[in-house]
Amino acid sequence: ERKPRFSFPSISSFLREKGQYDSIKLIHSIKVGISLVLVSLLYLLKPLYDQVGENAMWAIMTVVVVFEFFVGATLSKGVNRGIGTVIGGGFGLATAVIAEDAGEMGNAIGVAIAVFVCGTAATYVRLLPSIKKTCDYGVMIFLLTFNLVAVSGIRGETVVQLARARLSTIGIGFGVCVFTSLCIHPMWASDELHNSVASRFEALACSIDGCLGEYFKLVEEKENQTGGVNFSGCQSVLYSTDKDDMLAKFARWEPWHGKFGFSHPWEKYLDIGKELREAAATIFSLKGCLQSPRQPSSTLRQSMREQCEELGSSLASSLRELGDSIKTMRKCRPRFLIVSKLQSKSEELNLLMSPSKLGALKNDDGLAIASFVFQLMDIVG
Amino acid sequence: ERKPRFSFPSISSFLREKGQYDSIKLIHSIKVGISLVLVSLLYLLKPLYDQVGENAMWAIMTVVVVFEFFVGATLSKGVNRGIGTVIGGGFGLATAVIAEDAGEMGNAIGVAIAVFVCGTAATYVRLLPSIKKTCDYGVMIFLLTFNLVAVSGIRGETVVQLARARLSTIGIGFGVCVFTSLCIHPMWASDELHNSVASRFEALACSIDGCLGEYFKLVEEKENQTGGVNFSGCQSVLYSTDKDDMLAKFARWEPWHGKFGFSHPWEKYLDIGKELREAAATIFSLKGCLQSPRQPSSTLRQSMREQCEELGSSLASSLRELGDSIKTMRKCRPRFLIVSKLQSKSEELNLLMSPSKLGALKNDDGLAIASFVFQLMDIVG
Repeated sequence: ERKPRFSFPSISSFLREKGQYDSIKLIHSIKVGISLVLVSLLYLLKPLYDQVGENAMWAIMTVVVVFEFFVGATLSKGVNRGIGTVIGGGFGLATAVIAEDAGEMGNAIGVAIAVFVCGTAATYVRLLPSIKKTCDYGVMIFLLTFNLVAVSGIRGETVVQLARARLSTIGIGFGVCVFTSLCIHPMWASDELHNSVASRFEALACSIDGCLGEYFKLVEEKENQTGGVNFSGCQSVLYSTDKDDMLAKFARWEPWHGKFGFSHPWEKYLDIGKELREAAATIFSLKGCLQSPRQPSSTLRQSMREQCEELGSSLASSLRELGDSIKTMRKCRPRFLIVSKLQSKSEELNLLMSPSKLGALKNDDGLAIASFVFQLMDIVG
Repeated sequence: ERKPRFSFPSISSFLREKGQYDSIKLIHSIKVGISLVLVSLLYLLKPLYDQVGENAMWAIMTVVVVFEFFVGATLSKGVNRGIGTVIGGGFGLATAVIAEDAGEMGNAIGVAIAVFVCGTAATYVRLLPSIKKTCDYGVMIFLLTFNLVAVSGIRGETVVQLARARLSTIGIGFGVCVFTSLCIHPMWASDELHNSVASRFEALACSIDGCLGEYFKLVEEKENQTGGVNFSGCQSVLYSTDKDDMLAKFARWEPWHGKFGFSHPWEKYLDIGKELREAAATIFSLKGCLQSPRQPSSTLRQSMREQCEELGSSLASSLRELGDSIKTMRKCRPRFLIVSKLQSKSEELNLLMSPSKLGALKNDDGLAIASFVFQLMDIVG
């Protein structure tokens, strides 16, 4: 009765998730389409075009480049673009003004040197991990604007006028992005991070159930059937670092909404994610026990089956409890209650295990998991 | 005598790598600086400016946006940009021509509908995983160009002329990027992938050495000192998925060079990386044994020390051998020689282990690692 509990909901939830995700993708696409039409009106409606002219191009560019899937990503890119443009434009203008006095040849040499120094410095800065994480895009836009302004030879009045026009169209583009992003079915990176961290507890619990089911199924079905356990949930937990980092980065940009306050502790999610990955690595290594050619005898296995399954299911249920408590943002039962239950189960198994020899193969890994779960509880509780 | 072998080279190699990497970053930055100066000459030198005019802006943009760290990344982005621009321009022109006949109001409505449909479709396509991996940037440029051309209302002769001028400056920018990227100290994603996969064997071997050292040090130093093992190498192996995928993607774009032919099997590296991650997860789970509050008695530990250390060091040395054989692209010793040695060691440990009870804690994990190494050898051998 354990197998279906493990495999059936995981398939159906996968399909549901896929369905959900696809409709979410479609909604995002439609939002981009709407934003593009809105900025295109700057070109298409004569009175608006008379106001902004060719600079409407920058509004379209801004929408295409800045509109990202998550609200936080859109905000961070837009702000980066704005600040990068202003600073780059300022530096570029300064360079052009300084180089202007040096005659035609001197001007060209001065600008070339400035372009080289600025390009090298900005590229080096972009490669620094801390900048790469936070404002890579802003530095790129800085470099782009700096070069265009420094090199173009437009000066004085004209450049100020041009800068104002361009910035205002970039602002219009960004405003349209923010409006559509926030007002039509906003996709919050914070929700995604919250739910994905919470659902990982369930994935690990499923893997533990699956492992135990598989381990003792071998006995029942006399090794006729060796269909592998589905470790994909466990694996996706294991490889979630980059996704988490990205989501937490965007989540910090997102304004107060729903259940998240302004100073929601996003770093905590990264910490929990790290602990979950360690737990996933431990669970994953059970695969070695399942696939090992050296298997304990049926009787030995049968003798410890009950205790193992009890430990496994109480592990799984405490994981699920922790996951639920994160999902619903309720406090879960006091830590000592959960831990003491696990401890008593593992003591039972321990007592049973001492006389067994090869049987230890399985139990110790169970204990290793238990020790990880204790760590987890240290954090979550 | 095991500890220094583990810690000293890893620190010095870390410093050397850091030094190397920083100088490599600097070289890349200088390359970008040079490329920017070269394209700026289109503006700065009067005869060149007379030829290309304001369109020189597109060359600068191309360099800033397309020049990436690895040769493969630059090539892939440049080709994506070129193709995206051509197709987007074609579609945009077609839309503009079709909508032209519909009168001013009809024209605006027609273009707006086309912009909406195209924007929605392109954004949806960009979110599909297979497109996102291969030509996300190309689709974005397609969308950008399509919008600019469809909306701008430039027609016929002018648009062809403008397209030719823009494409040629984009081509100049891309040419400059490729030239600098290939001729000045090229950074090959393929080298990086090759070396990083090969060096991971060493990292895993170090972790195994470190684990065993730590485990038996506890005995010697009577648990006065519990300085943790350095699992960072193991951890970085564990979290290498995204980096590998990216490097393999770029490596496919890179032309024949050095020891790599045109059809070098890059997927194999991804397979090896996957197996290494599974092995890393197993090694990582040893951490649970090291940190567990339940430790076997000193005498028990001492009694199996020799066999454990022999198994561990032969595991580590076979990992190093495999890593070297990948690094130097030589065939390593026949598989059965390596495997048989490991098997005999694990048999020894096995014999010793049977009477021990809690001692099994450690050995079984060793065996789990052994089974993973066997898998590894299946692939590499």
